[in-house]
Amino acid sequence: MFLMSEFRKDPLTGRWVIVAEERGVKPYQFGEGWERESSFPCVFCPGKEHCTPPEAFSIREKETLPNEEGWRVRVVPNRFPALLPCEPLHHNIDGFYENMSGFGVHEVIIETPSHYLDLADLPISQIEDVLYTYRERIRKLGEDPRLHYCLIFKNQGEKAGASLPHAHSQLIATPVIPKRVQEELMGAREFYQREGKCFFCSVIEEEMKRERLVKEVEKFIAFIPYAARFPYEIWILPRRHCAFFSEIEKEEISNFAFILKEVLLAIKAILHDPAFNFILHTAPYPRSLENYDGYYHWHLEVLPSLAHIAGFEWGTGFYINSVIPEEAAKAFRQFIKDKS
Amino acid sequence: MFLMSEFRKDPLTGRWVIVAEERGVKPYQFGEGWERESSFPCVFCPGKEHCTPPEAFSIREKETLPNEEGWRVRVVPNRFPALLPCEPLHHNIDGFYENMSGFGVHEVIIETPSHYLDLADLPISQIEDVLYTYRERIRKLGEDPRLHYCLIFKNQGEKAGASLPHAHSQLIATPVIPKRVQEELMGAREFYQREGKCFFCSVIEEEMKRERLVKEVEKFIAFIPYAARFPYEIWILPRRHCAFFSEIEKEEISNFAFILKEVLLAIKAILHDPAFNFILHTAPYPRSLENYDGYYHWHLEVLPSLAHIAGFEWGTGFYINSVIPEEAAKAFRQFIKDKS
Repeated sequence: MFLMSEFRKDPLTGRWVIVAEERGVKPYQFGEGWERESSFPCVFCPGKEHCTPPEAFSIREKETLPNEEGWRVRVVPNRFPALLPCEPLHHNIDGFYENMSGFGVHEVIIETPSHYLDLADLPISQIEDVLYTYRERIRKLGEDPRLHYCLIFKNQGEKAGASLPHAHSQLIATPVIPKRVQEELMGAREFYQREGKCFFCSVIEEEMKRERLVKEVEKFIAFIPYAARFPYEIWILPRRHCAFFSEIEKEEISNFAFILKEVLLAIKAILHDPAFNFILHTAPYPRSLENYDGYYHWHLEVLPSLAHIAGFEWGTGFYINSVIPEEAAKAFRQFIKDKS
Repeated sequence: MFLMSEFRKDPLTGRWVIVAEERGVKPYQFGEGWERESSFPCVFCPGKEHCTPPEAFSIREKETLPNEEGWRVRVVPNRFPALLPCEPLHHNIDGFYENMSGFGVHEVIIETPSHYLDLADLPISQIEDVLYTYRERIRKLGEDPRLHYCLIFKNQGEKAGASLPHAHSQLIATPVIPKRVQEELMGAREFYQREGKCFFCSVIEEEMKRERLVKEVEKFIAFIPYAARFPYEIWILPRRHCAFFSEIEKEEISNFAFILKEVLLAIKAILHDPAFNFILHTAPYPRSLENYDGYYHWHLEVLPSLAHIAGFEWGTGFYINSVIPEEAAKAFRQFIKDKS
C-alpha cells in the first residue's frame, strides 16, 4: 500500500516525479520483492481472484462471474498503485516548489491464467485477447476527460522492474502528457510540417530497403531503429498510418499478435530469455486536441534489459549501445530463417 | 576493445546515441563481466600498471616513475573506450539519418592502490587527492578546443554499471554538450533571467531552512532535492557561487572531501552498501561561450541504485520515487547524529 502519492515538479528542468511512498518498506529491502510472492499459486493465478482489487475488465468463459475463475485475460487495479483515481485534487505552489496530487489510473493486465507461461509462449489467439484488452482499456479510460494519456507497458523479469513473475502488463493513465511522449510528438509534428508527410510512414518506406529490417508481414514491420539506445532494441510498426492504437482493426490485431510473438521468441532465444520492457506508443487524449491523425503513428518499442544504466547515461542523456543495429538485425533475421 | 565508435542521431527526438561495438561479446554474455576480472590483484592494482594503457596523470611518491608503482591516484585511458581520441572526424547525412565519428576522451580515475577499499573508506586526504585529480583533468582537457564538455562520474557496484570492483571513477569528454546538461543549463539560464539570481544559490538559501537538509559544513551543504528522482538521491552543493568545478580552491577541496565521505558512509550504512552513481555537474567549455559564471553553479548528484528503471520510466520520462524526500533526509540526519 502506498500512503500518499503526489506529482512534484523539478524546479529546474520541469521534469515531474511521482512520489509514492511504499508502506513499511525498509531501506535495505529494495529489490528483494522478486521472490516474495512468486510461488505458485500467486495472486494473479485462477482461484486467487479475491487477493486482487475487483476486476475492471476481463475476457472470460460464458456464464462465469467477474472475480471468479473462468477468465483468459483479467484487468485489475494495481495493489501498489503509483497513482490513485481519487479526489480531491490539489495543486500547491510553495516558492519555486510545485506539487499536485497523484491522480491517475494504474492497472495490471494479467495476460494468462497460467503461472508458468510467458507472453511469447502463449498461443496467438491468447496474444490477440491481450491486445484486444489493451484496446478496450484505452478506449474506456479515454471517456474520462481528466485523463490525457494512457501508457501501456510490460516489464518482464526482475531486471526490467517486474515485481511478480506471472505474465502481466501494466497501464498507467495520467492527467498530464508525459515528457518523453511530448518530445516524440514534437519531433513528429516538426517533421510533418517540414516534409508534409508522416515521419513513421517515411521510416517504414526507408527501412523496407535497409539492412535493419527484421521481419515484414502483411500489416506490420519489425526493425532495429537506426539510433537504437539499447542492444537488440526492436520496434514494431503498423504499415497503415494511424495515430491511435485504440483504432486497431480486428485483422490487424491478429497480424500484430503474430509478429509480436515472432519478435519475443527471437529475443528469448538469441539473448537467452532476458528481462525486457515493451512500451506501446500511441497518441494522447482527446483526439481533437491536435492533428495527431496527421502526424503521429502508433507503434511498439521493445527494449531488452541487457545493460545497467550508469553514471554516463544519467549525466548526459546519451546512451551507449554496444551492438551495432545492423548486426542485431542480422542476428534476428538468422534466427527467424533457421526456425522456419 | 571496441571495433568502431560513432554518434548516431535519433531522427525524431534529436537524441544522440553512441554506438560502440564491443569486440567478441556474444549476446548472452551481457552483464557477466563483474566476476571476470575482479580477483586480486586486478588490472587497477599496483604492480599491474603494464596492463592498462599508459597513464595520463598520477599523484605519486617522489622519485617514482609513471606506469610503475608508487602512485596514490592514477588516471589511464579506458581500455574499452566508448569514444576514441583519434582523427579523422567524419559527419555523414544519409536521408534523415545522421552520424558522426565517436570522437572524445574516455578515462578511468583509479582512486586508490587498495583493491578492497571503497571511496567512502578512504582517509580524507586520499579523497582530496581524488578530487584534486578531477580538477586537474578537467583543466587539462579544457585546453583542447574540440571538446565542449567533461563529465566526471562514478559507477560503484555492478547494478550501477561498474565493470570492475576496484575503486574508480570515470571521465568522458565530448565534442557536443549533452542533452541533460543542456536542459539543466537552460533551466538555470531562464531562472537567472527571470529572477536575477542563481537558481542554486536560491536553493541553498531555501534548503537551509527546510527539512530536507542532511548536513551543512563551512563551505558545502548536502540535502535531498525536492523532486528527487530516486529513493535517497542526495546532492552536495558548494555554498560559494561558482559555475566551474575546475575553479574549486584548496580549502574547498578539503571541505568537499569531508562532506562527501560523510554522505557516502551514510548511504553505505543506511542502505546496506548499495550500488550507486555520482555525477559531477559543471559548466561546459569554453567559459567564454555563455554567461555560465552568472547563472550556473557546479554540484554533485549522488544516485543510489535501489530500483530498476522500468517500462513506465522509459515510456514517460517520469520517475516514480517510493521514498518521500523529507523521510530520506530524516534517515540521513539520524545516522549522522547517532554516529557522532
